[in-house]
Amino acid sequence: MAYSCAARLPCRETLATAHQRLNARNPLVHCLTNPVTAHFVANTLLAIGASPVMADHPDEAGEVARQADALLINLGTPSDSRLAAMQRATRAAREAERPWVLDPIGAGGLPRRRELALELMQHHPGVIRGNASEILGLAQQHSGGRGVDSAHTPREAHQAAHELLSRAGGVAISGASDQLFGMAEQAGQPRPLCMTIEGGSQWLPRVAGTGCALGAMVAAYAAVCTDLPTAMLAAHLHAAAAAERAEARAHGPGSFATAWLDALASVEPARLMERRVKIHWLDDYGRH
Amino acid sequence: MAYSCAARLPCRETLATAHQRLNARNPLVHCLTNPVTAHFVANTLLAIGASPVMADHPDEAGEVARQADALLINLGTPSDSRLAAMQRATRAAREAERPWVLDPIGAGGLPRRRELALELMQHHPGVIRGNASEILGLAQQHSGGRGVDSAHTPREAHQAAHELLSRAGGVAISGASDQLFGMAEQAGQPRPLCMTIEGGSQWLPRVAGTGCALGAMVAAYAAVCTDLPTAMLAAHLHAAAAAERAEARAHGPGSFATAWLDALASVEPARLMERRVKIHWLDDYGRH
Amino acid sequence: MAYSCAARLPCRETLATAHQRLNARNPLVHCLTNPVTAHFVANTLLAIGASPVMADHPDEAGEVARQADALLINLGTPSDSRLAAMQRATRAAREAERPWVLDPIGAGGLPRRRELALELMQHHPGVIRGNASEILGLAQQHSGGRGVDSAHTPREAHQAAHELLSRAGGVAISGASDQLFGMAEQAGQPRPLCMTIEGGSQWLPRVAGTGCALGAMVAAYAAVCTDLPTAMLAAHLHAAAAAERAEARAHGPGSFATAWLDALASVEPARLMERRVKIHWLDDYGRH
Repeated sequence: MAYSCAARLPCRETLATAHQRLNARNPLVHCLTNPVTAHFVANTLLAIGASPVMADHPDEAGEVARQADALLINLGTPSDSRLAAMQRATRAAREAERPWVLDPIGAGGLPRRRELALELMQHHPGVIRGNASEILGLAQQHSGGRGVDSAHTPREAHQAAHELLSRAGGVAISGASDQLFGMAEQAGQPRPLCMTIEGGSQWLPRVAGTGCALGAMVAAYAAVCTDLPTAMLAAHLHAAAAAERAEARAHGPGSFATAWLDALASVEPARLMERRVKIHWLDDYGRH
Repeated sequence: MAYSCAARLPCRETLATAHQRLNARNPLVHCLTNPVTAHFVANTLLAIGASPVMADHPDEAGEVARQADALLINLGTPSDSRLAAMQRATRAAREAERPWVLDPIGAGGLPRRRELALELMQHHPGVIRGNASEILGLAQQHSGGRGVDSAHTPREAHQAAHELLSRAGGVAISGASDQLFGMAEQAGQPRPLCMTIEGGSQWLPRVAGTGCALGAMVAAYAAVCTDLPTAMLAAHLHAAAAAERAEARAHGPGSFATAWLDALASVEPARLMERRVKIHWLDDYGRH
Repeated sequence: MAYSCAARLPCRETLATAHQRLNARNPLVHCLTNPVTAHFVANTLLAIGASPVMADHPDEAGEVARQADALLINLGTPSDSRLAAMQRATRAAREAERPWVLDPIGAGGLPRRRELALELMQHHPGVIRGNASEILGLAQQHSGGRGVDSAHTPREAHQAAHELLSRAGGVAISGASDQLFGMAEQAGQPRPLCMTIEGGSQWLPRVAGTGCALGAMVAAYAAVCTDLPTAMLAAHLHAAAAAERAEARAHGPGSFATAWLDALASVEPARLMERRVKIHWLDDYGRH
């Protein structure tokens, strides 16, 4: 596997710009998301300088999606009403050319979720962000997963993610390391790319909703970035840098969650740049 | 504009009493509110010495509203079921002569919310608490707002608030400074009054649900106060005093939220009295 | 009342084992619970080393209950849809021989909740955990309660709890002291037992959802324990030990909630053993 030096990441130079734009533009992010973690998701968006709106009634969702700068669709605990809202909102977002992010919670282990996700994907999500079992599920490969947890490592879902690039602008797999897939230009040619981010914190998976929050962060960055790989990368680096700072202050998962929100609000662009990202071209696979 | 000295506030002498009563009576506050911030709202009520009950099924809402000492109606993410519950609860509250507070989230930018709010207002809310765009929307003036955010300053909504005093016991506009409208007696005559509260914290708008929580606090104080302007003022001063104390401890929005709940539980009546409130009579406007 | 020394508690020797198993097995706990405190419940399960899944759609609930290691049914703010899910999930749990815990919120003061609880109890809950008014309500005794608060002391609900032992493997009454009821063997005979746990923290009732969280902890321990009294006791001692540690760090209810989650994740089995538990046989009552 050919890792590039982080400095050669195609989109890298715009990360600081992405972060500055987020603060300057205060994008409105429409979240159709599960009530379990909705408060945490809203707090995350406010912490990074975005503005959440959670209107999930079918009669309002289309209108709000058109008002907003980006849309998050999170399939956790989907009620029939919220699902109807999701269908209208994704259609409206596509028509209004707003980016939307799909967080296909449970699409690994629960057939109903997979079907719902595939149906919504007809409106072409900007980014799909999930765990390995969910990405495998969406690519209709052997999946599994128990409840909403992953039964696979991110590495096992590489091929599935690569395939999904034909149906979404980017794919992010969360796990012990996060792996981001998108198309980037090299010598005038679009090539599929995988970026791996190490780090974060042991406490991230011990706080409910950090994954949901990351999906919302991707949507917020997608609202202000010109290309989706940059948005994915900026969001993941922002989350990971804040997690490392928070872990240094935390005594457990409760204080970690609090410190993460604090750090999300204060982490600086320079800090995002410090992190090392490993990159390889997916079409290099055959050569190994 | 003729500012009175805070010491001359008609209701001022009862603020410490209001706070003591809250702790002594532990009022039961029925909250029909959005699930996004419901946990934070419940924690806020517990912190200030009230007791929340969130029963939002149409078959229970009327009965619970009659059992409770006050009712909060918060229009965030309103499901059809919760709306049906709101209709029964507001009716029951009016019949049982319990004060109820309307938090008309989204009534600025979302026509459906405005209609719902106007319909519920037939049962005469004790207090309406919202941002400037929402207050303008309820007064059927030119509004706007994007999503649930305000597109106006509190000052722009003064006339709308004044008008709404014919349909509610008090009106509170939240913003950079909070502005409270109600009727007070002066020389035996009822006159419309505006009280302005400066202060608070930069972090309040960066935590999801602080506005919702403030609405619940108004309901709790309305349960134990004899007049609604006192209830509004006590709730807003309590919130603002706690916010200032919390800001001194906070490192960002996460730790601010935690410290605010702590401070809500420990702030003392004397501290409420320390704050300066600016007052003017609304019917003095013509003289300027 | 004949108190035994804690060392003679029938199940006591397995408490450290229960705690170790929880961490080793990471049981999946299916929670059908109110959205108000769902995030706190999920965070509690993650803190103690369990894994939450909150899928509450009727079309998914049966399948998820079969996948999970235990089920929590919490009757707070029950929507029609979540109730339908509860019916399928409790049936599935019983068929798959998974333990399930009933938290009958509001069954004291709200007749509809009592009926729902009694209907679900046909699928034989492992443990019923509630406040005194709720336990009285389920035993069809004179109850009351205003909203979801208790109007009775745990002591007043002893006989009701004893009676409910014919319909559940264990009964836990939360209050100023927690009282746990179950069957234990003595000299080869099953006898009804009451275990009383003193301690905890003044802040526990000032944080929304600590009771709900305790119900989820009982479910998590029931997933890994061989008998239900041990599961109840381990969960309650774990919660109480963490509460005492958290109180020492807390400045109010906000920081207490944070510190409690921290302490839940770090409290050690030895610490659970330190606490004194008072025990008496319920069939000794006649002798006093």
